[in-house]
Amino acid sequence: MDHLDVPHFLAMLILILGVARLLGAGAARLGQPSVLGELLAGVILGASVLGVVDSKAEIVHLLSELGVLLLLFAIGIETDLKRLMRVGGTAAVVAIAGVVFPFVLGYILCKSLGQPELTAIVVGASLTATSVGITARVFSELGKLREPEGQVVLGAAIIDDVIGLIILTVVAGLTGGGGVTLTKIATTTGLAFGFLVGTVLVGRVIVPRVFDFLSRTKHAGTMTSVGLILAFGLAWIAHRCGLAPIIGAFAAGLLVNETRQTEEVEHGITALGHFFVPIFFVAVGAGVDVKVFNPFDTGNHTTLMLGGLMIIVAMVSKFAAGFAPFWFKGRKSVVGVGMIPRGEVGLIFAQMGVNQGVLNPQLFGAVTLMVMATTFVTPPLLKRLLTQKGEPNKAEDGIGELVNEP
Amino acid sequence: MDHLDVPHFLAMLILILGVARLLGAGAARLGQPSVLGELLAGVILGASVLGVVDSKAEIVHLLSELGVLLLLFAIGIETDLKRLMRVGGTAAVVAIAGVVFPFVLGYILCKSLGQPELTAIVVGASLTATSVGITARVFSELGKLREPEGQVVLGAAIIDDVIGLIILTVVAGLTGGGGVTLTKIATTTGLAFGFLVGTVLVGRVIVPRVFDFLSRTKHAGTMTSVGLILAFGLAWIAHRCGLAPIIGAFAAGLLVNETRQTEEVEHGITALGHFFVPIFFVAVGAGVDVKVFNPFDTGNHTTLMLGGLMIIVAMVSKFAAGFAPFWFKGRKSVVGVGMIPRGEVGLIFAQMGVNQGVLNPQLFGAVTLMVMATTFVTPPLLKRLLTQKGEPNKAEDGIGELVNEP
Repeated sequence: MDHLDVPHFLAMLILILGVARLLGAGAARLGQPSVLGELLAGVILGASVLGVVDSKAEIVHLLSELGVLLLLFAIGIETDLKRLMRVGGTAAVVAIAGVVFPFVLGYILCKSLGQPELTAIVVGASLTATSVGITARVFSELGKLREPEGQVVLGAAIIDDVIGLIILTVVAGLTGGGGVTLTKIATTTGLAFGFLVGTVLVGRVIVPRVFDFLSRTKHAGTMTSVGLILAFGLAWIAHRCGLAPIIGAFAAGLLVNETRQTEEVEHGITALGHFFVPIFFVAVGAGVDVKVFNPFDTGNHTTLMLGGLMIIVAMVSKFAAGFAPFWFKGRKSVVGVGMIPRGEVGLIFAQMGVNQGVLNPQLFGAVTLMVMATTFVTPPLLKRLLTQKGEPNKAEDGIGELVNEP
Repeated sequence: MDHLDVPHFLAMLILILGVARLLGAGAARLGQPSVLGELLAGVILGASVLGVVDSKAEIVHLLSELGVLLLLFAIGIETDLKRLMRVGGTAAVVAIAGVVFPFVLGYILCKSLGQPELTAIVVGASLTATSVGITARVFSELGKLREPEGQVVLGAAIIDDVIGLIILTVVAGLTGGGGVTLTKIATTTGLAFGFLVGTVLVGRVIVPRVFDFLSRTKHAGTMTSVGLILAFGLAWIAHRCGLAPIIGAFAAGLLVNETRQTEEVEHGITALGHFFVPIFFVAVGAGVDVKVFNPFDTGNHTTLMLGGLMIIVAMVSKFAAGFAPFWFKGRKSVVGVGMIPRGEVGLIFAQMGVNQGVLNPQLFGAVTLMVMATTFVTPPLLKRLLTQKGEPNKAEDGIGELVNEP
């Protein structure tokens, strides 16, 4: 599919929206988060099964990126900066432990399997970065985003991204042979923190005033557009600072939360999200190649066994990180499970390793398996943890909802 | 720009949303419809000026198509089928006159300029099809969509598309040398009418029941998704029947209007429209190549003069068509002006003529000029007509609004 024409594009959207809704509702019926249904919809529609959605096609990639940006923007809008700051210390400890534990365990795993130093470092690095989209969506589906556990995971995900960036600089230097200088690391770190601090300090002063000024026009949809421009703008700047664009979108949401126009913006963004967010989760699912799971294909055996070990390491290490802030009064198991999902950043490390000849195809496949498994296993685990103790199951009201309205 | 990466995509969206909003508000300040500002934003961002928006890039093309589909869907939702039927006769006369007048005038113009028979037919045909997007948007901005003139233009645009389809079959047969058979024409016409009648008859029975059933789930965003699936589905079928996809989206809107969930669907669609619709008008503007207007370039002279004549023919003939239903009590001038804009279909005819060697580059350029001029001239003309007689100017409340809420 080189160039997509309009009818094919419409057919694809119909299938994405329809199957995601259907399986999302089905998942909810079975007591699972609907995001799990959307991921499955992606697997079914993806290249390795029906071949309707090609997650690598430009249009799918770009629309799904908008989806995850809108998701994190909406979650930022629902997040109170002060409340997030209050759990800052806890979040930092979770983030640091959540990088150190997987790295060390992954490194030991590889060394014990007789792999060279650099390979062990790359595999360790690929296990470090949490991908917050899945967790954030499950928390919001269940209306638990504002509880301490949700705040800690969100905060930890931001810090995690900054640490991930530093590791990326180091690993790229090591594998690329460009060398690692302290200046380079300091610049990277400074830029990332500069963005975060700058956005919050400057944004908190400017954004509410600009919003007040612009909202005087009272033209329908203006505030949604302005909000989108802010979110896309900060996502763009975050990317320029080396951070993930979703961090910028989340920061934009935090700033919108400080304005008097929060509700108006949220309204429009939620509606946009109903269209775009499922595209993201379907695209994630569509990236799964079911063929690698075929145990009858002996060529898969090494990958499957390596992948199995890596999945255990990935889950145990992040789960343990949730218990690192021993003073935290919230449920540490929820935080630990919330940190489990890995995503693109892990794949970026693995790809870098392959390109530099440090990772063999089996290890690359194992990292891919680990990313898939941690993505798919988190929603049901998290749901089970969040709704136990006889708490009311709100999920059935929350299907497809970005953020539960209070 | 072969493959667009995420940061470039975000930058493009920021510019589209920002400049369209800004010039839209500016146009409204000057008493013009905001859509004129969005078109100008497109010209400025387009390939021939700043080069930010390439209207031929896949992503721009697909997103802008979604924009015009959502616009016509929203307008369909606001349209009462019975009221539309009531003006059916008037609309049919306007549509038929609006095809015959431009065709005959265009044919005469070409013959009097010494052009061959087939060239005159292709030019005549390229003048026939009204592009309803611009007019619909202006009517909705001014809150005049439900008045008789608005209904007549909408009805005429649908019939116009069916007639355009028949002409296309004939002209394609003539220029392609494939011959024109009565069977072919009958099939085309039957399919188009079959789609319209079938959609309305079957849809009116089924859609409200399906919507009632699905709305019982009460999951946020479900009805918006279902509405989108219906709109995209009918757009897809319309395309398969040879009609413009927007006719299908409009029909879907008419059906949603018959359900009990109208407001819920409209809500979500309006929010989506705030994002997508400006992309359509910016893309239309970005398709304008300002270089052809340079009078210092003598190479442009023939095209400019031919274009000037064709613009006069295009405007006078459709304007006159508004007066064909002499019994109509509404303002015939409004209907006539509302029918003036031409769009893609005109360009399709011209392109077909070029491909078959029937149209020379000068005539093709002249058709392009005619499409641009009729697109840009209609919003201010229509606004002036619709707000004269001391009627209150509602436009400043309507900037960027898809459809004025009552």
